[in-house]
This record gives sequence, C-alpha cells and structure tokens, in this order.
Amino acid sequence: MDVLTPTEFRRQAARMADWISDYLEDSNRPVTPGVRPGEIRASLPQAAPEEPEDFTQILDDFERLLVPGLTHWNHPRFFAYFPASSSAAGILAEFLAAALNQQAMLWRTSPTATELEATVLGWLGRAVGLPDAFEGVIYDTASVSTLHALAAARHAAVPEIRQQGLREAGELRVYCSDQAHSSVDKAVLLLGLGLQSLVRIPVDDDFRMRVEALEAAVSEDLLAGRRPMAVVATVGTTSTTSVDPVVPIADLCQRHGIWLHVDGAYGGVAGLVPELAHLLAGCERADSMVINPHKWLFTPFDLSAFFCRRMEVLRGAFSLVPEYLRSAEETPNLMDTGVQLGRRFRALKLWMIMRAFGTRGLADRLRRHVAMAQDFAARVDASEDFERLAPTPLGVVCFRALRPDLEAEALDRLNQDLLDAINRTGEVFLSHTRLRNRFTLRMALGGLRTTPQDVQTCWELLVATLRRLEERPAADS
Amino acid sequence: MDVLTPTEFRRQAARMADWISDYLEDSNRPVTPGVRPGEIRASLPQAAPEEPEDFTQILDDFERLLVPGLTHWNHPRFFAYFPASSSAAGILAEFLAAALNQQAMLWRTSPTATELEATVLGWLGRAVGLPDAFEGVIYDTASVSTLHALAAARHAAVPEIRQQGLREAGELRVYCSDQAHSSVDKAVLLLGLGLQSLVRIPVDDDFRMRVEALEAAVSEDLLAGRRPMAVVATVGTTSTTSVDPVVPIADLCQRHGIWLHVDGAYGGVAGLVPELAHLLAGCERADSMVINPHKWLFTPFDLSAFFCRRMEVLRGAFSLVPEYLRSAEETPNLMDTGVQLGRRFRALKLWMIMRAFGTRGLADRLRRHVAMAQDFAARVDASEDFERLAPTPLGVVCFRALRPDLEAEALDRLNQDLLDAINRTGEVFLSHTRLRNRFTLRMALGGLRTTPQDVQTCWELLVATLRRLEERPAADS
Repeated sequence: MDVLTPTEFRRQAARMADWISDYLEDSNRPVTPGVRPGEIRASLPQAAPEEPEDFTQILDDFERLLVPGLTHWNHPRFFAYFPASSSAAGILAEFLAAALNQQAMLWRTSPTATELEATVLGWLGRAVGLPDAFEGVIYDTASVSTLHALAAARHAAVPEIRQQGLREAGELRVYCSDQAHSSVDKAVLLLGLGLQSLVRIPVDDDFRMRVEALEAAVSEDLLAGRRPMAVVATVGTTSTTSVDPVVPIADLCQRHGIWLHVDGAYGGVAGLVPELAHLLAGCERADSMVINPHKWLFTPFDLSAFFCRRMEVLRGAFSLVPEYLRSAEETPNLMDTGVQLGRRFRALKLWMIMRAFGTRGLADRLRRHVAMAQDFAARVDASEDFERLAPTPLGVVCFRALRPDLEAEALDRLNQDLLDAINRTGEVFLSHTRLRNRFTLRMALGGLRTTPQDVQTCWELLVATLRRLEERPAADS
Repeated sequence: MDVLTPTEFRRQAARMADWISDYLEDSNRPVTPGVRPGEIRASLPQAAPEEPEDFTQILDDFERLLVPGLTHWNHPRFFAYFPASSSAAGILAEFLAAALNQQAMLWRTSPTATELEATVLGWLGRAVGLPDAFEGVIYDTASVSTLHALAAARHAAVPEIRQQGLREAGELRVYCSDQAHSSVDKAVLLLGLGLQSLVRIPVDDDFRMRVEALEAAVSEDLLAGRRPMAVVATVGTTSTTSVDPVVPIADLCQRHGIWLHVDGAYGGVAGLVPELAHLLAGCERADSMVINPHKWLFTPFDLSAFFCRRMEVLRGAFSLVPEYLRSAEETPNLMDTGVQLGRRFRALKLWMIMRAFGTRGLADRLRRHVAMAQDFAARVDASEDFERLAPTPLGVVCFRALRPDLEAEALDRLNQDLLDAINRTGEVFLSHTRLRNRFTLRMALGGLRTTPQDVQTCWELLVATLRRLEERPAADS
C-alpha cells in the first residue's frame, strides 16, 4: 500500500501545481544559485529516515533546502549552453507518464507507448522534412543516439563484429569536424575504437566542415588500408550553430559507402520553420540523424529522437531475445533497437506538445528566437565595444568585448571577467567557448519564456558591466 | 510564450491529478489491453496538427485513443517480468522534476541535482549495506549501468584502449552465469568485444553460478593467453531470482585481479530488509554494483543506481571536457561518469520516496511481498496439479502445471496454453521463462498495490483455468 492516500495525493498535487505555476511565472529570481560546492549536500542528513515523513514537510524541505541550489533552466534569461525549457503541456505529460509507468521494452508491455513512439516520430520527421524512409526510435540523450548511430555504422562495416569483436576488424575511421560535439569522442571510446580512430576535419571561416579536407582524409585512409566507417556531420554545432555542408558530404559518403550520421540535436528542429528548412538540405540522404526535442522544442528533459534509414542494421547489431522476453506476437519491440532494455513513455509528452502548439505554433516560436538572436547580433555588430566571432544562422550569438589596445591574452581575461561578472549578478546566465583560440561569449536564445525585453536586459547589462570593468584602476586589470 | 496560461495549467493539473488518483485506485480494469498490433497507430493521424489544439481535447483523446492500449504496470495483479510500480511520492516528484527541468551535466548547471544524487545514493547504499567506499551515479537503466561497469573493467584491463581501441588488446573475457541478464550480452556487443568474449558459466541445482566452473574457465583462459576482464555476478537473476555465491566469486576475482560487477538490479533492494540482507553477502567487496529503484522500490521508471568503488577508472575511461563545458569551479561533474552528457533530475524522486516511506516502511513492503511469494509457493507445493521449478528466495515463484501422463512437449504446450488463457482474461498478467528446457510460469510479486487477495485471485484463476483446459475435448489439446 502507498503511504499517500488518494485524498492526500490530490491535495499535494494541487499544492505542487500551484508551486509550479508560480515558479514558471517568476522571472525575478536569480538564474543561477549562489551556493558553494558541497553546501547543499552538507545541509542534508547522511542517512535516510527510518520512519515515514509527512509529505507536506518533504515539500517544505524541498523549498527550503533544494530550491536554493537550482540552476533555472526554465528562466527567461537562461542564455547558456543550448536552450532547454519545458512547456506546460510537456510537464503535465510527464506527470501522467510517471503515473502510467509504462515500460515499453516489448510491444505487449505497452502497445500504446510502442505505437505512439512511431507515430510522433513520424510527425516530427515529417515536420522537419525527413522522408518516410526514416524509422524513428526515442532515446534519452543525443549522446546515446549518436552512440547507436556509430554502433550501427560499425556493424555495417564489420558484420562479424557481433561474434568476434573488433580484434580482427582492421583500422576503422570516423570523421567529424573539429567543431563536432564531444559525444562523438565518447561514442568512439565506448565502442572500443579508441580516440585515434576519430579524425577531426578542419572547418572553413564559417566553422563548417571543409569537404575537400574530408575527401583528402578519406582518400589517405583508404590508401593506407584503413576503413572509413562513418562521417558525423553537424547541423547546428555546439559552439556556433554552424551547419556542415551535408549535401556534398552525402555525395562523398555515397561514393565511398560510408555511413552518414547527422547530429541535428540542436539544429534539426529548424526544419519546422519554412525559411530555415534549407539548413537541413542533404539530411534526407543521411543514414541516420538525431534531433533533440528536449533542447529547442519545449520538451522536458529527456527526449532524443533518433531517425534511421537502416534500422535493420541497428537491430542486427543488438537484437537478442532471451526466453523470458519472448512473446508470441509478430510485433516491433523497442528493446531490439538498442542497448537499453527498458524505456519510459517519452512519446506522450511529444504528442501532447505537438498537439498543444501545433507545428505552426512551434515554428512561430523558433522563428521569434532566431529573430531575437539576429537582433542581438545586430547590436553587437553596431557596437564599437563588441565584435561578433561567428555567423548566426540559428539562435546562438558568439561575440566578445573588443579593446584594440589589448593583447590577445589580456582580451581573453577581460572577456572571462565580463562573463563572470554578468553571471554573478544572477540576472542572466551565459556560457562561453573558444573560437580560433579566442575566448568567446555565447548568447543562446530559445527559451520558451524569453522575450525581446530579456534580450534587451542582457545587452544593457553587458554594456554596463564592461564599462564598469574598464573603469577599474589599472592595478586590478 | 507557452500555449497554456497559468490558470489553464492549474485547471488541467487538477483534472490530471483526479484522473491519476482514480487510475491508481481502479483495480477492476484489465491488466493488459485487448488491442491488436497496429491498432493504436491506425487510430492516430499521420501528421501533427498545424494549429494549436485545446488541452482538454488532448486529454479526452488520451483517454479515448491511448488508454485502451496501455499495459497497466501499476495494476495490483501485474505479476509479469519484474515488478515496477510507481508510488504517489515518486509521481509527484516527476511532476516537479519536469517543471524544474534540471540538466545536471555539470555541477554548475544544477548544484542541487548533482549533490542530491550523491546524497540519496549514499542513503540507498547505506540502507542496503554497502560501505561508504562506494560512490554512486544514477543512470537510466540497469543495461546502461552494467555497460558502464564493463567499460570501466575494460579500461582497467587495457588503459591504452582510450587512444588505441581494442585492436591490439588481446582476447578479453567476461564471465557470467547462464542465468545472467541479456544486458551483459548487449554490453559486450556495444563494447566491441563480440559475443565470443562472453563466457556463460553453468549453474547449480538452485540456478546459482557454479564457482568451480568459473574457476576452471578463468584458469583455462589464462593458460590460453586470454585476459579475464570482468565477472558479472547476479543477486536476483531474471528467471528465478537466484543469488550467485558472491563471496567465493569475490575471492576468485581478488585472486586474479578481475573486476567484479554485481547485477542487483532486482535483488539489491533486499538489503533493506534485515532478514534478507544476507543475500547481499559479498556485494560489499564488488568493484561495482547496480540496483534499480525503478523495479522494486516504487520509483517511477527510470532510475538505475550504479555504485562503484573505483569511479576514477570510469572517469578515466570517459572524462572529456570540451571548452564549451569548462567551468572554473573544482566540482564533481556528473557528465564525467559516463557516456550520457545530459542527465535529468532523477534523484528528486528517490529522495521523496525514501522520506515518504522511511527505510522501515520500504522494508515492510518488501517483506510483505516476499511473504506473498512464499504463500503462493506454498500453494503450488501443496497442490497435486502444480509443481515449483525453482527455489523462491525473493518475490518470484517459478512453477508449472503438472500432468504426469504428459510427455515433455505436451506439458510445455499445456503450460503455454494455461499462461495464454489466464492472461487473456485480463484478470492477471504473468510471464514465462524456460528452466532446464521446461516451459515455466513466473509469478512476480512486488507491486505496491498488490494484496494477499490479489494473490488468492490469481491462484484460483490458475486452478480453474487449468481444470477448464483439461476438460477440453481431446481434439483441441
């Protein structure tokens, strides 16, 4: 028997709904917490209580002890990393999914979760322009999607790996640009290929993979008897949201029979916006693609959509049916498409979100975010005190404060100080990267609750903080 | 801007809380749905709507179109596979977690989620008797926990793998019993070791790994120049919940310097119950162990707790910090302990559940489930029409209908028919396995809402259904 009675459950759910509603509306709290490392943990007991505690007390403690250490990803002025904000429809869907507790390893263990997953991935794939030849499966994260893509590519290149492993497989090679996400490195590590099998291809001035350099690397490897196994192209790289030239990369992959995986974890949803859809040109020819609704599609963390033209290869790599999981029906069983046996009912939230917003409603919001990014980029470009360090094809602006009199190192330090100072205010949260070895600030737009006023606030804060930093006595600088 | 206003959010949350409360109370609905493969999908549109839809309509459609295809894991008479039921505290925690949308890749991206994860895993580890030397991290599933355990073991055996991959690593070997879970096979596949590197050790009459057979296999491999890399022992195997003799296995692993991973995904929580804690003897000496609160600890799917004595090995295998994720603080960053960069706020539900129930409240419930299993086993043992096919150390009873006059194949068919017939009633849901090549029914106790009356109902249904099957005209049998 549960500890909470039905009456108590309804009462606590109502209290929680109120709290959540207030929380999502409150844009005055600091975006980042002021706690020091270890502070939250030190405030909590070392052992669980033996006796049941009252749920009201637990929620009080949540507010008192845990909220002070939260970073508010749903805050309208969270501009760090990539956006990841959750919509009301998505939050309600997760509430429901936790109660239903579907575990869709087999069709029979949840026909609805199994079939809704196929349905909503069909919706999403179609909405971003992928052809019906792509089959979809939901994983938790893009790291796991890309891992499965490369596992499938490995299996396609060396089918005997299933029995024999990599020992006699020869030297395999994976290619991505020097701007590709670290999840490619991690996948290569896990797959037992070793980092030396990963070839990082240089980029052009706009941070896009240089296709002629890729071609040269592939040719060199082929000549040396190495085996090109996969190319990972990115639509929306992590540092700058640059978009690799997928069309010529697809040509190259087709010519050489190399698996093409597209990392559209961030940028893939741009396909929903008619005037941005050209950024996905060539993706329809990929062998696999990952798109993360939990980034820029208002879906509570986690939901990574993996699309694959050759899902049978993935199934060939992983399908294993022990007796205790055998079932009589001839059905698609999601456990066959990967390493994870259990999978929760993530499709429900995407279904509710796509219906609650409609594809046009989603596209409108993405369009506005890109417009805000353009607006911010224009402010940077118009200012003598700042410069932009990369093109802004989507929602992220890469920039820095500019001081012609400063050497490279001092300028880096100024920008690091600027970032630290504005983040310390709690008014905004931005992150950074390095571009051509220059310390670079990143302003990422895409939160569901972000308005042009928030962008304005951030800009004014940057200008004022920079002025304040420059007015410091020389000894400090 | 979100589509749901705050007022609408509260209204819909209240409706959902009512629905959930009724849902969890309702034990009259069939445990399994009556839909045919493809039926749910066919009832849904092929494309997402363009325009926003009313949330009330969406919830209506949820009830009308999706509920008919749910398998009710939270139903008191869900006796299949392993239990996986969600408590009210866990459901409410997931509601909150979806709203907070914490993404704890770095300490700074959620100090609370990072530190609460360490805290509650400390609570759980201590509660089941693991020493403080174990550090914990939360993954989604046991498959991913075991994958990371074996990745760490591989790195410990061949540190140069990080750069060079497996090509020159020699022949590695992983050992587990022939009753171990298929996740071990999948991990071996993904890691690039190939299935031939997995050695399945035979079991004794009680389905426990035979240590002398393990010793012999290891010796033979060493003699042949192969490299024993890891042993996976299981506390609570999937078919019968048998418990491998971890103490002598730990001795052996220590002697040979082999990584010992314990799969306690199901059985690990038994450590909470004083009179069952002996089943975990030896686990304190493992290098790593997985325990899944989402199985038998009333935690909504997903939450797999991974405990490791040598987390620095895992970090050595996977840590990678690209510039865009660098932060100044000297802090533990959860992204360093695995493949997944993003991780959601799973610790919150375990914190709420352990407080709401108290360790004693949790132990009471587990104890009652085991007692119900013992009671069911006693009914089987006392019946002339049924026989038990394995010991019942925890909450799962393996049994079959017995007919001395039937040949092996006919008896298998009778039991398959019996299983199909009782599952078709919708009154209960049981699954099966094969033990010593005999078709075996599995009755898994452990649902939060299961009562002795439910066990009684199941038993009566089995007896009556068997009688009915035996009364069929011979032509049908």
